[in-house]
Amino acid sequence: MGESYGRFKIGSDSSLMPFITSANIACGMHAGDPTVMAQTVTNAICHETSIGAHPGFNDIWGFGRRAMNMAVRDIEYLVTYQIGALQALAQSQGASVHHVKPHGALNNVAHDDIEVARAIGRGIKAADRDLIFFANCKSAMAKAGEELGLRVAKEAYADRRYDDNGKMLSRDSADAVITDPKFAAAHVLRILEEGAIFSVNGKRIPTDVDTFCLHGDEPTAVELAKEIHSVLNINNFDILPITDIIQ
Amino acid sequence: MGESYGRFKIGSDSSLMPFITSANIACGMHAGDPTVMAQTVTNAICHETSIGAHPGFNDIWGFGRRAMNMAVRDIEYLVTYQIGALQALAQSQGASVHHVKPHGALNNVAHDDIEVARAIGRGIKAADRDLIFFANCKSAMAKAGEELGLRVAKEAYADRRYDDNGKMLSRDSADAVITDPKFAAAHVLRILEEGAIFSVNGKRIPTDVDTFCLHGDEPTAVELAKEIHSVLNINNFDILPITDIIQ
Amino acid sequence: MGESYGRFKIGSDSSLMPFITSANIACGMHAGDPTVMAQTVTNAICHETSIGAHPGFNDIWGFGRRAMNMAVRDIEYLVTYQIGALQALAQSQGASVHHVKPHGALNNVAHDDIEVARAIGRGIKAADRDLIFFANCKSAMAKAGEELGLRVAKEAYADRRYDDNGKMLSRDSADAVITDPKFAAAHVLRILEEGAIFSVNGKRIPTDVDTFCLHGDEPTAVELAKEIHSVLNINNFDILPITDIIQ
Amino acid sequence: MGESYGRFKIGSDSSLMPFITSANIACGMHAGDPTVMAQTVTNAICHETSIGAHPGFNDIWGFGRRAMNMAVRDIEYLVTYQIGALQALAQSQGASVHHVKPHGALNNVAHDDIEVARAIGRGIKAADRDLIFFANCKSAMAKAGEELGLRVAKEAYADRRYDDNGKMLSRDSADAVITDPKFAAAHVLRILEEGAIFSVNGKRIPTDVDTFCLHGDEPTAVELAKEIHSVLNINNFDILPITDIIQ
Repeated sequence: MGESYGRFKIGSDSSLMPFITSANIACGMHAGDPTVMAQTVTNAICHETSIGAHPGFNDIWGFGRRAMNMAVRDIEYLVTYQIGALQALAQSQGASVHHVKPHGALNNVAHDDIEVARAIGRGIKAADRDLIFFANCKSAMAKAGEELGLRVAKEAYADRRYDDNGKMLSRDSADAVITDPKFAAAHVLRILEEGAIFSVNGKRIPTDVDTFCLHGDEPTAVELAKEIHSVLNINNFDILPITDIIQ
Repeated sequence: MGESYGRFKIGSDSSLMPFITSANIACGMHAGDPTVMAQTVTNAICHETSIGAHPGFNDIWGFGRRAMNMAVRDIEYLVTYQIGALQALAQSQGASVHHVKPHGALNNVAHDDIEVARAIGRGIKAADRDLIFFANCKSAMAKAGEELGLRVAKEAYADRRYDDNGKMLSRDSADAVITDPKFAAAHVLRILEEGAIFSVNGKRIPTDVDTFCLHGDEPTAVELAKEIHSVLNINNFDILPITDIIQ
Repeated sequence: MGESYGRFKIGSDSSLMPFITSANIACGMHAGDPTVMAQTVTNAICHETSIGAHPGFNDIWGFGRRAMNMAVRDIEYLVTYQIGALQALAQSQGASVHHVKPHGALNNVAHDDIEVARAIGRGIKAADRDLIFFANCKSAMAKAGEELGLRVAKEAYADRRYDDNGKMLSRDSADAVITDPKFAAAHVLRILEEGAIFSVNGKRIPTDVDTFCLHGDEPTAVELAKEIHSVLNINNFDILPITDIIQ
Repeated sequence: MGESYGRFKIGSDSSLMPFITSANIACGMHAGDPTVMAQTVTNAICHETSIGAHPGFNDIWGFGRRAMNMAVRDIEYLVTYQIGALQALAQSQGASVHHVKPHGALNNVAHDDIEVARAIGRGIKAADRDLIFFANCKSAMAKAGEELGLRVAKEAYADRRYDDNGKMLSRDSADAVITDPKFAAAHVLRILEEGAIFSVNGKRIPTDVDTFCLHGDEPTAVELAKEIHSVLNINNFDILPITDIIQ
């Protein structure tokens, strides 16, 4: 959320907010100028959506989706920097940052690279040791977060397919992104009912999942969120704030 | 302080730290990448120097010294953003941000423009209402800070000359910057003894002064700081942390 | 045109191209990454639209619409830099840059400030002395361009109202932007028939006009362009390439 | 050369110019603002040094030394963009760009990655098919340049050691950079006399070398350049402009 940047508009945040419980808010480095950040915090407060930081590589042109070979020390401080900026903008409205979800290429690199995952973890812990680390369910981030004593919420994607290692398919693959609402809802339901994610090749990868992620910049995001919300309700799943799930 | 940026080095922070009580640390927008910020915090802690945020316009090329016609709302959030980033990097080292001094063109615009001054004040207050606002002694910032109920430290420049309105001479003037250590020390002493600043035309402008500012990017900064420190000691002035002066 | 930036999309360039004869293409500083620039050149070639450079202040967040107090020397080289970048991308596709139209705040500052206008003019002349300078019809730019021996195309806005000095109303005014296609077409026709622009207060300001400008980032741009195109045709005006008008 | 950026100063360009025949000038993306570029062109003209473009990744903080996983299409246009910007600034002073040397991480990625090397080659060819491509002597760039019909100057480093694949040792290695002038001169002489570069492990890698590269941002650059210049003269090597060597 909050991935507009000045005159450049991305996403349909106001339409999406009612259907989510946690918002990952861009922090100015890949998207989200300070004013957009403040407005997105306001929007989240209005919808009683839990506020999270969504730090990324400093690359507006690339929208944070191009891996940068950055020193782990720089990654650590870059993460703390972005969380701190959002904390101040949230606190000034009487709100708090509850979780952190790395963005784009930073998230993807840290899926596999334990040193980068630890740097992100240290960056989170430095900002506030009570922050919940939203980590891809089968990633080095989940491991790094636990090592560091952070609370970890295991995350699966509602709108993305997986490879055999439990990693999101790259956007270079034609079928990486799920855009059909009914398919997405079935995909989410299956993960919950089976206690596993499934690769495009049919491989079953057992995992707990605490939270599902949707990309707010996809034009189909609102439709997917509505359908998933509805299907989960029909199937008697409670959709709870992450702070009720991760103690 | 902390105005290096990646491979680009500016200032002699380690040499300067022993001679100052408050460090204004760049926050990534005009200078100071996150790693430099973290290192400068460490440096300040080692020297028991009080940590302050030094937010500026987002303009690395211009070093924040080119006025930008930014909406006051954007200025407010840009200030909070930068303070928050530094707060998180300071807190992770067990330190706190105690004060805020606007940088460069942001400071100069706000000297005269009460709306910009108020936006900065609101941005400070949003981050932490206990922050001390370092405001040029005869500026709209001092007024705005008081209106908003912020603690204001009145600031004079140890290394700059003044115009008849009590504003720093622009760097476009050949004699704007004081580079001679003995002259600077005499200039500081005179301000303290007279309870006034003096313009280049000899005009006397009465004012309290709580703190003196030195530009760390000037090659003569360390020499000036040493000489001023020494002359103030000889003349029996106590150089105290700002938190001992502004209650 | 070409004001998208990576994943951030602005404008409907493909829909607009058929209705214009000259495209002002953003050059990477306020919008328009190198790939967008190359694609916009391709698009212009397909529609036989004349290619122009649209240099702006280096401010993505502000979309080049915030005045920056930049040294005239920096402005001069910044303009040459951006034109050169577009020239290379155009030439590689067998096309050439024919004109230059300053963007946003750079254009607005140079409307009144003859030193900035001259810096832009020198920057244009340095890149190619045969470039046509698209200058607001009553501006310092028109004067500066003529002084420097550049060919000047006098420009009026099809989608903006004027103040009594013949300058575009600021976007801060509620009625600055014309969004009604019929109104815009009547506005253009009146300027041509009367040989004058008219301020919001009804003041008549005589002027030649060689070209009309439309802002491609306005959602109504395509509708306005179609209607103006149609109304000019009906009224037997020829819409010619600028290179046929300015010899 | 030209790697200063606004107030951030890097290198001793004026001292170095007399001892080199070709200057690789930064083009604004990793360093080198437009004014610095124009001044560096002036400086090169004064010293009759051949002007080359030194395009890099768009990463000021990282000084272009962090690999970015950029699409090859974006790399191609980014290279043309930067060359074009320098061409315009050179041409306005009556000079021309004669060669192109990729900077930092862009150069290092393209050493091994033929797709990136080809993208750079296409970007060069698009700007001007007569440009000489300065390519690391054993790199994919040399191959890509030849495939594309570009003139290639094979380059070795005067101030860097090599691995067994003929690639510069990474700066992460303690002994990557040669800072001793006598050692550097002996290293250059040996390469010329043996017709080979030598790895840190002593491996002999036969190669032609047309040009030697020195990093202008190293504090020892001027001393190295002087010593190499002197030693080559003593040993009766002619130091010629690259355009006399590569026909």
